[in-house]
Amino acid sequence: MLTFSEINNYPMSLRKKLSPIRIKNNLFKRDVGAAPGTLKHIGEKKLDKVSIEIHDYDHEHLDIKKVESIEECKPYVDTVNPTWVQVKGLHDIAYLKQLWDEFNFHPLIQEDILTTTQRPKIEDYGEQIFIVLKMLTIEEGKLIQEQVSVVFTDKFIFSFQESDRKIFLPIKERLAINNTRMRKGGPDYMAYALMDIIIDYYFGVLEDINNEIEIIEEELWTGKDENALGAIHKIRRQLLHFRKSIWPLRDSINSLIRDDSLLVKDETKLFLRDVSDHTIQIVDNLDNNREMVSSLHDMYQTNISNKMNEVMKVLTIIATIFIPLTFIAGIYGMNFEYMPELSWQYSYPIIWIAMIIITIGMLIYFKRKNWM
Amino acid sequence: MLTFSEINNYPMSLRKKLSPIRIKNNLFKRDVGAAPGTLKHIGEKKLDKVSIEIHDYDHEHLDIKKVESIEECKPYVDTVNPTWVQVKGLHDIAYLKQLWDEFNFHPLIQEDILTTTQRPKIEDYGEQIFIVLKMLTIEEGKLIQEQVSVVFTDKFIFSFQESDRKIFLPIKERLAINNTRMRKGGPDYMAYALMDIIIDYYFGVLEDINNEIEIIEEELWTGKDENALGAIHKIRRQLLHFRKSIWPLRDSINSLIRDDSLLVKDETKLFLRDVSDHTIQIVDNLDNNREMVSSLHDMYQTNISNKMNEVMKVLTIIATIFIPLTFIAGIYGMNFEYMPELSWQYSYPIIWIAMIIITIGMLIYFKRKNWM
Amino acid sequence: MLTFSEINNYPMSLRKKLSPIRIKNNLFKRDVGAAPGTLKHIGEKKLDKVSIEIHDYDHEHLDIKKVESIEECKPYVDTVNPTWVQVKGLHDIAYLKQLWDEFNFHPLIQEDILTTTQRPKIEDYGEQIFIVLKMLTIEEGKLIQEQVSVVFTDKFIFSFQESDRKIFLPIKERLAINNTRMRKGGPDYMAYALMDIIIDYYFGVLEDINNEIEIIEEELWTGKDENALGAIHKIRRQLLHFRKSIWPLRDSINSLIRDDSLLVKDETKLFLRDVSDHTIQIVDNLDNNREMVSSLHDMYQTNISNKMNEVMKVLTIIATIFIPLTFIAGIYGMNFEYMPELSWQYSYPIIWIAMIIITIGMLIYFKRKNWM
Amino acid sequence: MLTFSEINNYPMSLRKKLSPIRIKNNLFKRDVGAAPGTLKHIGEKKLDKVSIEIHDYDHEHLDIKKVESIEECKPYVDTVNPTWVQVKGLHDIAYLKQLWDEFNFHPLIQEDILTTTQRPKIEDYGEQIFIVLKMLTIEEGKLIQEQVSVVFTDKFIFSFQESDRKIFLPIKERLAINNTRMRKGGPDYMAYALMDIIIDYYFGVLEDINNEIEIIEEELWTGKDENALGAIHKIRRQLLHFRKSIWPLRDSINSLIRDDSLLVKDETKLFLRDVSDHTIQIVDNLDNNREMVSSLHDMYQTNISNKMNEVMKVLTIIATIFIPLTFIAGIYGMNFEYMPELSWQYSYPIIWIAMIIITIGMLIYFKRKNWM
Amino acid sequence: MLTFSEINNYPMSLRKKLSPIRIKNNLFKRDVGAAPGTLKHIGEKKLDKVSIEIHDYDHEHLDIKKVESIEECKPYVDTVNPTWVQVKGLHDIAYLKQLWDEFNFHPLIQEDILTTTQRPKIEDYGEQIFIVLKMLTIEEGKLIQEQVSVVFTDKFIFSFQESDRKIFLPIKERLAINNTRMRKGGPDYMAYALMDIIIDYYFGVLEDINNEIEIIEEELWTGKDENALGAIHKIRRQLLHFRKSIWPLRDSINSLIRDDSLLVKDETKLFLRDVSDHTIQIVDNLDNNREMVSSLHDMYQTNISNKMNEVMKVLTIIATIFIPLTFIAGIYGMNFEYMPELSWQYSYPIIWIAMIIITIGMLIYFKRKNWM
Repeated sequence: MLTFSEINNYPMSLRKKLSPIRIKNNLFKRDVGAAPGTLKHIGEKKLDKVSIEIHDYDHEHLDIKKVESIEECKPYVDTVNPTWVQVKGLHDIAYLKQLWDEFNFHPLIQEDILTTTQRPKIEDYGEQIFIVLKMLTIEEGKLIQEQVSVVFTDKFIFSFQESDRKIFLPIKERLAINNTRMRKGGPDYMAYALMDIIIDYYFGVLEDINNEIEIIEEELWTGKDENALGAIHKIRRQLLHFRKSIWPLRDSINSLIRDDSLLVKDETKLFLRDVSDHTIQIVDNLDNNREMVSSLHDMYQTNISNKMNEVMKVLTIIATIFIPLTFIAGIYGMNFEYMPELSWQYSYPIIWIAMIIITIGMLIYFKRKNWM
Repeated sequence: MLTFSEINNYPMSLRKKLSPIRIKNNLFKRDVGAAPGTLKHIGEKKLDKVSIEIHDYDHEHLDIKKVESIEECKPYVDTVNPTWVQVKGLHDIAYLKQLWDEFNFHPLIQEDILTTTQRPKIEDYGEQIFIVLKMLTIEEGKLIQEQVSVVFTDKFIFSFQESDRKIFLPIKERLAINNTRMRKGGPDYMAYALMDIIIDYYFGVLEDINNEIEIIEEELWTGKDENALGAIHKIRRQLLHFRKSIWPLRDSINSLIRDDSLLVKDETKLFLRDVSDHTIQIVDNLDNNREMVSSLHDMYQTNISNKMNEVMKVLTIIATIFIPLTFIAGIYGMNFEYMPELSWQYSYPIIWIAMIIITIGMLIYFKRKNWM
Repeated sequence: MLTFSEINNYPMSLRKKLSPIRIKNNLFKRDVGAAPGTLKHIGEKKLDKVSIEIHDYDHEHLDIKKVESIEECKPYVDTVNPTWVQVKGLHDIAYLKQLWDEFNFHPLIQEDILTTTQRPKIEDYGEQIFIVLKMLTIEEGKLIQEQVSVVFTDKFIFSFQESDRKIFLPIKERLAINNTRMRKGGPDYMAYALMDIIIDYYFGVLEDINNEIEIIEEELWTGKDENALGAIHKIRRQLLHFRKSIWPLRDSINSLIRDDSLLVKDETKLFLRDVSDHTIQIVDNLDNNREMVSSLHDMYQTNISNKMNEVMKVLTIIATIFIPLTFIAGIYGMNFEYMPELSWQYSYPIIWIAMIIITIGMLIYFKRKNWM
Repeated sequence: MLTFSEINNYPMSLRKKLSPIRIKNNLFKRDVGAAPGTLKHIGEKKLDKVSIEIHDYDHEHLDIKKVESIEECKPYVDTVNPTWVQVKGLHDIAYLKQLWDEFNFHPLIQEDILTTTQRPKIEDYGEQIFIVLKMLTIEEGKLIQEQVSVVFTDKFIFSFQESDRKIFLPIKERLAINNTRMRKGGPDYMAYALMDIIIDYYFGVLEDINNEIEIIEEELWTGKDENALGAIHKIRRQLLHFRKSIWPLRDSINSLIRDDSLLVKDETKLFLRDVSDHTIQIVDNLDNNREMVSSLHDMYQTNISNKMNEVMKVLTIIATIFIPLTFIAGIYGMNFEYMPELSWQYSYPIIWIAMIIITIGMLIYFKRKNWM
Repeated sequence: MLTFSEINNYPMSLRKKLSPIRIKNNLFKRDVGAAPGTLKHIGEKKLDKVSIEIHDYDHEHLDIKKVESIEECKPYVDTVNPTWVQVKGLHDIAYLKQLWDEFNFHPLIQEDILTTTQRPKIEDYGEQIFIVLKMLTIEEGKLIQEQVSVVFTDKFIFSFQESDRKIFLPIKERLAINNTRMRKGGPDYMAYALMDIIIDYYFGVLEDINNEIEIIEEELWTGKDENALGAIHKIRRQLLHFRKSIWPLRDSINSLIRDDSLLVKDETKLFLRDVSDHTIQIVDNLDNNREMVSSLHDMYQTNISNKMNEVMKVLTIIATIFIPLTFIAGIYGMNFEYMPELSWQYSYPIIWIAMIIITIGMLIYFKRKNWM
């Protein structure tokens, strides 16, 4: 059994592996009472420069361009063709502000994109629909989270992400093919595609967590459970965090399907229903995992009790056998002058025989009690 | 008491019996960002060849035919008579794709049929209703799961299953009789019949789980609880898994009953209400079982505590009696020159009498404390 | 403290008292895939012969007759007066089938009457309303359950029960009086009366369970808790079972009140609201009892811990006092040639004094620690 | 530590204080199957004689009169002025029945007033609104409950209570003042006032419970927790009971506010919303208290574990130090003829030094382990 | 390990830090049965004098004035420009009553402003909307709560607070700037701004609680968990209290958004949705924290068990090794005349060797059992 204090002496590399994702405290820091339009980036700075990439497409044509200035951006977006503007990096607030004002983003949308501690949500601002998603992946055993925001109208769709992680690579590959449903679809279909890919990442994370649970279970069964407590606690944290990232999405997607927003076409709604379905499936699995982890903790506790029981039994058996024997030896170690047994010739072997009988009797008793 | 490490040394055959169904991890593996129409079979390959069997029937006639090519299939399906097409095996995607396109299956239906990790659901695609069910049986003490998908329109009904398990044999037997309600009914009634049979299987599984719970209970009462912890954990897993397979069905069926789909006739809705009722009954029983298992775990824990208590009592009784006696013997084993008792004539018997009195006193004390 | 293994050695008569009602496993056995109209009695056979008793009444007249053949039955039922047909025994399926077909019972109603493992429910079949109830009583300390089914139209009401237990005797007594509300009321009022009486039985069972809980509580307070664990587990089972029997009724009655069935008159609805109220009251009490039982289990657990603590304290006190003393005695039992104390004259009394001082010191320490 | 068996030996006066309110078992006893109109008082008899007091008022006049016969009562009630008839005592059923029939009380209202085990509820009988409330106070440390029923129409309001406790004294004082809102209001406002006062009593009880929780918390922090377990269990019971008395009121009041009963004026609804608000506030506090109590129980459990730990540590320290020393002493107590150490001159002091070194080493080890 | 009794001996300064916010008992004290309009301040007196500050503004002008008499106040409020009247201190009831009557505050609003134990709520009184908020901050490690009430019509907005804490300083700073949204907005926007700032404070408190949880977690990992139990209990209390302060807000805000109050403009509703969103985010975090704290308590419990286990192991190892050895020494300390071993020449070294072998055997056994 490894105690906590020993865990603490582990090499730091191992400790890090055990420590789950944490909500960085400063992430909550807002300026108390700041006006709702006040823009301030809340979160870790993950990228130095804001990069903008434009995909202007219809079913036959596809223009991809990295733009430097916002002026370059405008002509593409203004066409009737759907345009996907992929923005990476959230730190150059002045630059972003200029971009957003150009396309009439609501001040609350602007604030929410910058606040990377949002819970996932879908909000209908009439002419714009705003989506906040939390991308989750596991990199080097750590749960990485990144906020992805999506804003779309009937003409264009903007995606914002914190780092330059290539999350949407598969989308770009599919977009490269002519006459696909994606190329024929509008910004609403693209929004669906972006949501779908984020949810697909969740399945990967879910699988990793499932694997870890199975490893812990194996450890508990085989009694090699020194790290089990830490691992259980870590997974509990991860499940809580995971759940927080996906739970609110469920209602949001359903309200998007139910509502009569002109921005979402009926054929896209069928696909959104599919996304909603995946969301529920993941939440179900998370809930099951939670119960599993709870059951594992019970097993671990019982494990400790069983071990304690075993220790106590060994102590009891040894003490119960030898304490009476030592007492008998003590008796004949007394120095009374008048102890007739001391001078009898066969006292010594008789005592030995008596002791052996007592011992055997005890052992039989313990066997019967199932203690051995 | 058997510890976990000992459980681990059990023969493998026994271990296997203890290990419950697991969600195969690779089942979650999807291609991240694949287009929604991209068809890929997700799940274990259970059958080599896709087999198709057609049942074309009205209240007087019944045609049963195994078909090889899809062309053979079409004329039967196109008749006004209801036609049940039973498809076994999901691996020959190209072949299935051809079949599905022939009958205008929605791309999302196609994807869902192949993804055997779906949660059960009923979806209305306007001209088609799509049902995903999870068949559960217990074979050789293991919980076996198989996804059964059903698609029906007003003219035909398709059923898809992973293996060639003869799940629907009773349906075929009933279908063989003329003028029954099944023969007079349309695809919606057939869909009900298929759902009903799957739910009937659940009752069998429920019964097996009930039996296992009673066995554990018996073991706990009789104190032969070496395997109880493992068995409790196993049943917990099975209950979680079972619940996941049936819980979503409840709402789905009710929404099918409430909705105004033209594909489901009013007289069939009465029968669907009956299925819904069975579903709720099973969920109720699962929830009760869960509480029972939780109560059993409490009993097991208390069992351990009681055993520990008993061990401690034996130790305490033995130690409390003999430690003072040994001390007395030790006193008179001292080698002081001036110890008057040593030379008294009746010291030795007096000491013995004193010791016996102490022992009896202790025993009375323990009896009073109810420790013996 | 009584361990489980000891409980097992209890005389069988006592064990039986402890063992709560069980869901007989074979009760779930259905023919997988049987057609919905297939009639099969599911449950224990409790009565050999089906007996039918007819009560034809209006506010002035009352005809009671035991009938043998179904033909005898018909003329009474066909009158405009409300007629209550009380059927006891469910085994002669052919006979019952004939009866049911005569009065156009829906096939699903027929199946449900025979399946005595139904959950309670109220179903509206348009021209018939079908009610399933679970009668509960305690006989010789065991929870007895019996399914009571009621079918009523605007003209007649049928009640079906498994055994010939005289459940409805009070109804008959009230029915014997002219011009009562019952005699003036229609089949809907009679249905209410039957439901009301079943619920009245629940209060009796609830009271018995309350009594048992108080007895356990008393036992825990007085420390005579040898049987407490078994009793707690038994009550938990009973509460789960009880709850399953009444919980679904709540929604069913409310939907009957809300719905616009022509079969239930408005004045009867007021009375149904009263039944609904009783149902909720019972469910509330059951939930409170559940929490009470849970709290009792906690107390029991704490009781065990406290007892263990006490055992440990006795051991520790005895060991802590005598082990050092024995050591001192051991010192002067050593056989070194040069031990000056051995030959001092007052060594022996000094040692005794030292030992007594040590003992007193220890006792004061334990007193301070509140261990004695 | 005080064990349960010791608690049992407490003087009876103290025990009583510890034992919480109990649902008197006979309170549930109903006549199974009694007709809904059958009147029977269910509950303890708290008052011998029924007393009736009439308050006939408008904004300028107030008539208060104790009446003996029901005839005296009628003229006051029949006026257009609102009249409050306060009835105390529920045992003279014949007398009450006469009163109720005079004013056309629905039979179910009559039955419910007499059944003092009702859950609180508000029921709309069209021309009458019927309210059941549970008054709670703490008298001499015991939770006292009394059922208060209120029936009002547009002209009069009746209140019924079990005992002659002066619950409504503050109402009478306010009623004595001319031109207040109460004097201007109708029976609906008076009904609000009666409800409001009952809820005000709840705040007092809540405060008492809060105080008890703080006392227990203090006891747990200071380690004087001998009575904590009993007190925790008592409060749990009280909270359950309290919650049952107020929980159903929440929905009832809200439905009264929402419904379009002509008997409740719009301006009264604002006040009812206030009552509803208080109800929710109390339920919130009860739920928080429940969690607090649960947390206290956890603390208590941990307290026991910590104490056990301490006991074990003392035992271990003493045993670990002295058992090896005793062994060494035992070695040199052996009587072998050839033991060279025995005759060495400095053996004895060397042994002493060795023993002291061992002891110091052990103590350092324990210090490091933080056991001392 | 620090026991509770030791915690009690901590210096008082430390104790205070450990003790969480308490609901002052007298806060519940109401006058039972007081008329709804009866004004009484319930809560701690935090300020001696009531101070009133007026902000009369439109997009171009801003008048700020501290007023002494209520007459001074009126002209500002009566203008068409929105006016924010900030009132600090709630003790001069006569003065406040005069103010409220001047502006036609509903009696229930007046009562609720004075009752500082309100739960947060938003109530629509037709021409006035009334908002109760609980401001939370952490000052010197203690959770400070203050009730803030807001009343607004289409012309003016009043805010009431208990102390002269400068909660709304940021609002005033923003108000000082011309042509901002706040200056252009009406009282409804100001109400939003006040709510928003209160919620912003919550994030700060949330962060402090998060920090404390991480500290406890760190302590548990490193085994320095002497204060953990107290800290866990404290955080539990804080979370319960926090939750109570924010939970009801969620529904209130949503009903304000949904309802058709003319007092809240559509563009303000978008901002209210944002506030609602923050509320939900905080509740989510609180719930996660609750689960985290519960998991930490489990860890602490397991920690104790592990420590106990370690103690027991040390005892068992020492006892198991030395008790048999002492027994052997005891054997050869017996004084029998005929013990052949005593006179053998190598008995003594042989015994030593035997003892060493036994010890080594034991140690190997313990190593294998992983006890060392």
